[in-house]
Amino acid sequence: MWMETKADPQDASRKPTSTIQRLMNSLMMVTGDMESLDKYMQDKWFILQLAVWACRGVSRVILANNPLSGVLMLVALYWASPWQGLLGTVGVMTSTLTAVILGQDSAEVCAGLYGFNGMLVSLLMGVFNAAGDWYWWLLLPVCLGAATSVFLFSGFSPVLDRWDLPVAVFPFNVVIILYFLCTGPNNPYFPHPVAIPPSSPPPNITELITSEVLRGIPLGVGQIFACGALGPSLLILGALCLYSPLQALHALLGSAVGTLAGLSVAVRHESLYWGLSGFNGALGCMAVGGLFFTFSWRTHLLAIACAFLSAYSDIALSNLLGTVGLPACSLAATLTTTLMMLLTGSLAAHRLPLARVRAPEQNLRSRSRWEAGSTAEGESTDV
Amino acid sequence: MWMETKADPQDASRKPTSTIQRLMNSLMMVTGDMESLDKYMQDKWFILQLAVWACRGVSRVILANNPLSGVLMLVALYWASPWQGLLGTVGVMTSTLTAVILGQDSAEVCAGLYGFNGMLVSLLMGVFNAAGDWYWWLLLPVCLGAATSVFLFSGFSPVLDRWDLPVAVFPFNVVIILYFLCTGPNNPYFPHPVAIPPSSPPPNITELITSEVLRGIPLGVGQIFACGALGPSLLILGALCLYSPLQALHALLGSAVGTLAGLSVAVRHESLYWGLSGFNGALGCMAVGGLFFTFSWRTHLLAIACAFLSAYSDIALSNLLGTVGLPACSLAATLTTTLMMLLTGSLAAHRLPLARVRAPEQNLRSRSRWEAGSTAEGESTDV
Amino acid sequence: MWMETKADPQDASRKPTSTIQRLMNSLMMVTGDMESLDKYMQDKWFILQLAVWACRGVSRVILANNPLSGVLMLVALYWASPWQGLLGTVGVMTSTLTAVILGQDSAEVCAGLYGFNGMLVSLLMGVFNAAGDWYWWLLLPVCLGAATSVFLFSGFSPVLDRWDLPVAVFPFNVVIILYFLCTGPNNPYFPHPVAIPPSSPPPNITELITSEVLRGIPLGVGQIFACGALGPSLLILGALCLYSPLQALHALLGSAVGTLAGLSVAVRHESLYWGLSGFNGALGCMAVGGLFFTFSWRTHLLAIACAFLSAYSDIALSNLLGTVGLPACSLAATLTTTLMMLLTGSLAAHRLPLARVRAPEQNLRSRSRWEAGSTAEGESTDV
Repeated sequence: MWMETKADPQDASRKPTSTIQRLMNSLMMVTGDMESLDKYMQDKWFILQLAVWACRGVSRVILANNPLSGVLMLVALYWASPWQGLLGTVGVMTSTLTAVILGQDSAEVCAGLYGFNGMLVSLLMGVFNAAGDWYWWLLLPVCLGAATSVFLFSGFSPVLDRWDLPVAVFPFNVVIILYFLCTGPNNPYFPHPVAIPPSSPPPNITELITSEVLRGIPLGVGQIFACGALGPSLLILGALCLYSPLQALHALLGSAVGTLAGLSVAVRHESLYWGLSGFNGALGCMAVGGLFFTFSWRTHLLAIACAFLSAYSDIALSNLLGTVGLPACSLAATLTTTLMMLLTGSLAAHRLPLARVRAPEQNLRSRSRWEAGSTAEGESTDV
Repeated sequence: MWMETKADPQDASRKPTSTIQRLMNSLMMVTGDMESLDKYMQDKWFILQLAVWACRGVSRVILANNPLSGVLMLVALYWASPWQGLLGTVGVMTSTLTAVILGQDSAEVCAGLYGFNGMLVSLLMGVFNAAGDWYWWLLLPVCLGAATSVFLFSGFSPVLDRWDLPVAVFPFNVVIILYFLCTGPNNPYFPHPVAIPPSSPPPNITELITSEVLRGIPLGVGQIFACGALGPSLLILGALCLYSPLQALHALLGSAVGTLAGLSVAVRHESLYWGLSGFNGALGCMAVGGLFFTFSWRTHLLAIACAFLSAYSDIALSNLLGTVGLPACSLAATLTTTLMMLLTGSLAAHRLPLARVRAPEQNLRSRSRWEAGSTAEGESTDV
Repeated sequence: MWMETKADPQDASRKPTSTIQRLMNSLMMVTGDMESLDKYMQDKWFILQLAVWACRGVSRVILANNPLSGVLMLVALYWASPWQGLLGTVGVMTSTLTAVILGQDSAEVCAGLYGFNGMLVSLLMGVFNAAGDWYWWLLLPVCLGAATSVFLFSGFSPVLDRWDLPVAVFPFNVVIILYFLCTGPNNPYFPHPVAIPPSSPPPNITELITSEVLRGIPLGVGQIFACGALGPSLLILGALCLYSPLQALHALLGSAVGTLAGLSVAVRHESLYWGLSGFNGALGCMAVGGLFFTFSWRTHLLAIACAFLSAYSDIALSNLLGTVGLPACSLAATLTTTLMMLLTGSLAAHRLPLARVRAPEQNLRSRSRWEAGSTAEGESTDV
């Protein structure tokens, strides 16, 4: 019933019969991909349109696509640290504007596809900055890095398109690694601390605190935005729930799986406490569990497998890149998700073509409708 | 004559005229790809079929495809070390079963394509295990790693298919490197020794022993299975000879070339003595000399060039990965073979399409028959 | 007027009316791609043809395609160091001959496409050789490396062809890195010094000398040939100017941009003084500014962006590879240019298909003629 109403908000809003239903319909309007908003915004001022694109871009960081979720996530970032919030805003605006100037496909720009890599670049530059908050010179690499991410996004897409793969956060990972390599640990202008790999000695001598580990699970969701505070992380989770409850569930599940993987190879306690072990698992679990694959018990198991693989790959890559003082960011989850989307065999039938990917709940509905349609068609052909 | 009989075993077995010929026919039945077995096994129990698939998988490690060779190779492994034999068996069974569960293409599963990567993962995990033999906890990463290799195999294939390239042992190399990176050298549960690069100091102060170097050549064939004992290595070579004498010859030749390459850049003496310098050369030489290219004097020269390139690349990659304590496994040979299969120019005409690759002797025969056919066709068109 | 005459040299040479025009026509004959020479050489001796192919190969190093420029560049190399000149000659001849023997496409061989990677391999082997000049044993790896570069060129092309990308200097970069890794810093036969990354400590304590930095800009053009002397660098620049003045301008501009990028992240002063910061920028700027894209103010800006990105990527990659003692060579510029050529959006319309790439001036002319043609056609269709 709920799904029914949600799928056709226009139809439902035409005949509201009670206050509860009217309230529900308003709620429906702001969940999922909010595609109706695009039509509404078409003839508005450019600055308003840009704001919507940027907000979509913010939500894209966590694989959502809902401007309202984006606003809430931005609020969470400002709450955690106003400086990080500012950097994120600058990053997402710069990269979206660069895409407009470079003349990228307008449908892609509107969908926020050119915002999230730039935002992540700026957030990570802010987090890995030894010069402290409000170091205004940092805006220079932030803007350059965010703009570069657009070039990479645009350049990677024809290659990945061949296999109908998303560009995802490959540009962010490349740009941030190049930035860290470029400045080095001793740079006089843009100093940054060296990343500590999860398996680095000295070994864990203190007792593991269970409550801290459990606290790390929601923090893992916040770490997708490089945010390590509990309150903002929960707000981000809530904003994700607004987009899709199924995805929020998978985010938590993936973070838990990642923490479990971290425990199994005895990573540093800080990695577990701060949610650093969880965020790659969360990303991997979300991507497979409902977003790029239709949700079912088989894809749910695949999502858990993907979360494990993402988490272990992240530990491996963090250890590797840690030898030269670099963080692995979300490279592991991106690679693992890409691998899962290339899977052949009977699981491939559950994969959605990239052009038809919507919120998990909508994916489920469009598949069932499409299957019903093809059955009905089959019947009508019989007659 | 021999080739004639071999190519059509069914036809030949119908009219045996003497005891010698009957014996020969039985021998023909068990050499090459043993495709007749597949038809015979079709309606047998699943467990028996699985055993045949797994045995094909075992032989695939050394680029063969013959269940009987696989059995002999497994015997060689148990002979060298029962624990390694057990790990190999667990690995090949786990990955083949995972492929069945994931619903991979049944023709590929039957051909043993989902077994060899899992087997190699488990063998290498066993060899690089500082906790000693019969450390039962190791079965956990062995099973997980073998299962993961199936995901990678399945995911890599659509990418490599575009250029009609085999997935080969890329999944094994990725999984084993991720595993070593993940656990790190100081892991409390799964400790493993650090790999020593072939060019690492201190320099060779002792005299080079020629007999040991020569002994390293057949050991290089055994090292493809991570087996460092002479007897089992010779048994593996014999099993390979059962599949294809030409391939066994190329294996030895490639190992010799690899040893020569090792000598030319003054690698550690242990690398030469233990056959570690030879096995990448052997793999490269086998792949090009008869398997993926039709055998001729030109492809024979190319096979030698490929062996040299594989061996040098292996030294290079071992030195690179050795800086972070990782072994290069068979990455060099896999990359070099992939490169050779992409070659354009007049040599590309000798390359076989992947779907028509059989044992080297059968490749030779099918090409000559096919060329004769096309000539005959050309003539008939003239008439 | 100049462009007019140049584009149709045959037509112009038929009716020379004055001495000045006759002189101009002769000059036209030797600028640009000199395609008329190929027709003239068709029935000459093989050794002469080979010399022309090799000279084209030499000029290809700096993205030109003019045998006369190649001769001048070779003269510059012999001027800087006769040993380096000899190595370069051996390298370009070996790889061109290998391509002939391997039966590569003859049009590609004639265009010098199989020469430049081999030449660069041999030049870099010479520069990074701790055994001093006239160490004749070095000819062994030089010949092997140059020959290997042909295999890599041939193998990479089917992959890159899918996206209409040039193979560029990928083979050179792979071969030289494998060579350095293979021999290692302590090799008894082929010792080579360890590359020092641009951001390596100790920090710059001396004052920056502006004149030296400015001198580094033309040196950056010479460094494309691993040549660090001012006179030969200027001769190389002059030879490039003979091919295309626009490209020579972009080379200088790119080198300046690269120096600026180096200054912005405080690299070692030696990197700036010796032109090492500039050469990747120069390569990136040349490739985008006129060669693979038609020259216009938009692509000019893109060329500057590409130069910045190449230079920063080079610093990043040099720092990364420097941790294991390896130089980054021209990997950064090659990757960045490849990325730029994959760009989607409105800039992609300026990109030339690979088969139609000529000297920048000719590209400009062929585009305007082609556009005029399509307009005329459009008009005629209207009528």
